[in-house]
Amino acid sequence: MVDIEKANQYVCEQFMEARPVVVSMGKAIEVVPGMHENMLLHAGPPVTWERMAGPMRGAMIGALLFERKAKTPEEAEAMLKSGKFEFAPCHDHMCTGPMAGVISPSMLCYIVENKTHNIKCYSNLNEGRGKVLRMGAYSQDVLDKLYWMESVLGPTVKAALEASGGIDIRAILSKALHMGDDGHNRLDAASILYTTQLAPYIAKVAKDTQTAFDVIKFLGENALSILNPVMAACKTMTAAGENVEGSTIVTIMARNGTDFGIRVSGLGDRWFTAPAPHVKALYFPGFTEKDANPDIGDSTITETAGIGGFAMATAPAIVTFISGTPQDAIKTTLDMYEITYAEHKYFTIPFLDFRGTPTGIDIRKVIEKQLPPRVNTGVAHKDPGVGQVGAGVVSAPMKVFEDALVAFAEKYGF
Amino acid sequence: MVDIEKANQYVCEQFMEARPVVVSMGKAIEVVPGMHENMLLHAGPPVTWERMAGPMRGAMIGALLFERKAKTPEEAEAMLKSGKFEFAPCHDHMCTGPMAGVISPSMLCYIVENKTHNIKCYSNLNEGRGKVLRMGAYSQDVLDKLYWMESVLGPTVKAALEASGGIDIRAILSKALHMGDDGHNRLDAASILYTTQLAPYIAKVAKDTQTAFDVIKFLGENALSILNPVMAACKTMTAAGENVEGSTIVTIMARNGTDFGIRVSGLGDRWFTAPAPHVKALYFPGFTEKDANPDIGDSTITETAGIGGFAMATAPAIVTFISGTPQDAIKTTLDMYEITYAEHKYFTIPFLDFRGTPTGIDIRKVIEKQLPPRVNTGVAHKDPGVGQVGAGVVSAPMKVFEDALVAFAEKYGF
Repeated sequence: MVDIEKANQYVCEQFMEARPVVVSMGKAIEVVPGMHENMLLHAGPPVTWERMAGPMRGAMIGALLFERKAKTPEEAEAMLKSGKFEFAPCHDHMCTGPMAGVISPSMLCYIVENKTHNIKCYSNLNEGRGKVLRMGAYSQDVLDKLYWMESVLGPTVKAALEASGGIDIRAILSKALHMGDDGHNRLDAASILYTTQLAPYIAKVAKDTQTAFDVIKFLGENALSILNPVMAACKTMTAAGENVEGSTIVTIMARNGTDFGIRVSGLGDRWFTAPAPHVKALYFPGFTEKDANPDIGDSTITETAGIGGFAMATAPAIVTFISGTPQDAIKTTLDMYEITYAEHKYFTIPFLDFRGTPTGIDIRKVIEKQLPPRVNTGVAHKDPGVGQVGAGVVSAPMKVFEDALVAFAEKYGF
Repeated sequence: MVDIEKANQYVCEQFMEARPVVVSMGKAIEVVPGMHENMLLHAGPPVTWERMAGPMRGAMIGALLFERKAKTPEEAEAMLKSGKFEFAPCHDHMCTGPMAGVISPSMLCYIVENKTHNIKCYSNLNEGRGKVLRMGAYSQDVLDKLYWMESVLGPTVKAALEASGGIDIRAILSKALHMGDDGHNRLDAASILYTTQLAPYIAKVAKDTQTAFDVIKFLGENALSILNPVMAACKTMTAAGENVEGSTIVTIMARNGTDFGIRVSGLGDRWFTAPAPHVKALYFPGFTEKDANPDIGDSTITETAGIGGFAMATAPAIVTFISGTPQDAIKTTLDMYEITYAEHKYFTIPFLDFRGTPTGIDIRKVIEKQLPPRVNTGVAHKDPGVGQVGAGVVSAPMKVFEDALVAFAEKYGF
């Protein structure tokens, strides 16, 4: 008979004691386990080209243009349909990607090391808000920015990271949660903490002062600069709690724009999926919910690790971006305590008298309380080639937790 | 018959519509109005050497050592006693100085321009926390840091400010109040927003990459980097509301460590003073309230302008530094609405549904509600030469408001 309580306690300890540090960068093909020349990683659970959502198709097309494997979007689409490329979830390769989450072989990736458990995870570079590859856009200006990121931003940040000895992401998140960030959609404080820590080294290692100027300015003005290293950091936390016999704690929540999927520690690598829900959002001028793709992206790894939507009580200003009121934000956090196993040791909420964030989603509690995890997220246009149209809040589909609990009962004989 | 309501409304509009931008730096003797070779500015209302508090005496001694006018603390003290030097309040020279607030002729000062009203105010550079001149310390390491600030930090930041076209302090404060800052003792977010905006220019203008590294690192690691420009910025706001006939709004609150003083818009340049109160504080290890000097510094210009202690509801994490609970912080802000005339247009508190901060202390309301303004502050050791011993909260003495209201009644014939 497995001891579920003991297993869950161990898993949550693993989540919390992970100490992720972003140490360097490398091209995906050189650093990501299992990556090959014809592999394209994407967010969420597995998906075929036929079932793939518009923004993910757009990002795939953009990736082939970026890789110079195709010259036109039409050529790229034909190649993607042909079966020549292997599509695989980021999560199966120790990666995480925001929104479409497409990572192609020559893209630079952050390398984040969990120093406690010696686990490495990866994520690509953040392009900023608006018309960007991760939202499904692939116009020439999108590609030009990616080439600049590849040739100027990336190498400079890589050299600065190495010169700095690495940046402790858990320490930054601990501070940022006291500075109005939720750790997912609002990373204003964390991104400038990151920029401020890196900037002295960028000034030192950049190939010239103009490069230093451009790189520091880009990082400092992008309120999501740190999103990708944060996601890889959260994956190093939850990966430390994977595959623990008897644990009912969720180790991955991820969406590909078609399906919402979870994995559960005691159930190994099996995905439990359901149709991705629509997001309750604030839309940018000129867009409405008719333009919106369903929920997409690996960024829900933040909620899985105990921050993001779960920590919204500490980030009331986020409602200007994702809709709702400060009271809604507080209520979300209070609700999430109902379905989590632990309160975080290092991530705390001053307004709730420094209570730890709700950490470790327990599928039993989700079912018992009939309360699905709530996350906050960006919203991509449903068609390839457009980009972001808004941001909002969404609840995970109950079906994935129901299916997981049935599978848990079958496996462990309850 | 003066229209007090109209006068107060005008004063508060002036406070709020001021748009202070830090544009450059210059030596005090070259930029501060009325400064001369034998003048030493200090925080708070006027004070003689005989009545001067320990930390202010310490800072005066340090200033003469820094200026190389004295070779030893003993020699400096003899010169200060001799009557050779003119002591004058910072506020009488369009300056503000934190804690002892000592500004000597060759010190570099920030130049902050209120672009709306074309008013310039000044403040010295921030040394960081701990053993520093503004807390009354003057040992060789304190002086060495000041020389580095004078010769390396200052000139580099000055060049960067000029290259940047100036940094908008009101815009930074608006953001920082949504990032856990109160704008006075907690400036963690504002200081890195400031560093992040300046860093690209520092990288570009610094004389070499090591200088760029050192300067960005110093600014980024000092959570009070922006305190002095913020204080000068707040003075440009309140100065825009000075000398308005019939207004009962406070335009200055300042303490010299011996006396707490205020000025009131409708009462011109007259100081109303009372003994400086003791601070309810959290002390650093090794110190107790027996070591503490009474309340000192010009930094209460932040509360006068509607932030700092008045905005604590938006900065719950500050209680780890100044004592109390998040509930105390919220209560302080709610209380301050009782004694202020306006709610700020640009400084808002997400947790109170984006309500504007309490702005413009009305001496009538202070007396009517028997509720003195509350401020938060650092605490200096009472002896010269030691430095900071803690931080906490303090209420202004009621007497200054009582005396001001009597003077107001006499002047305006109520």
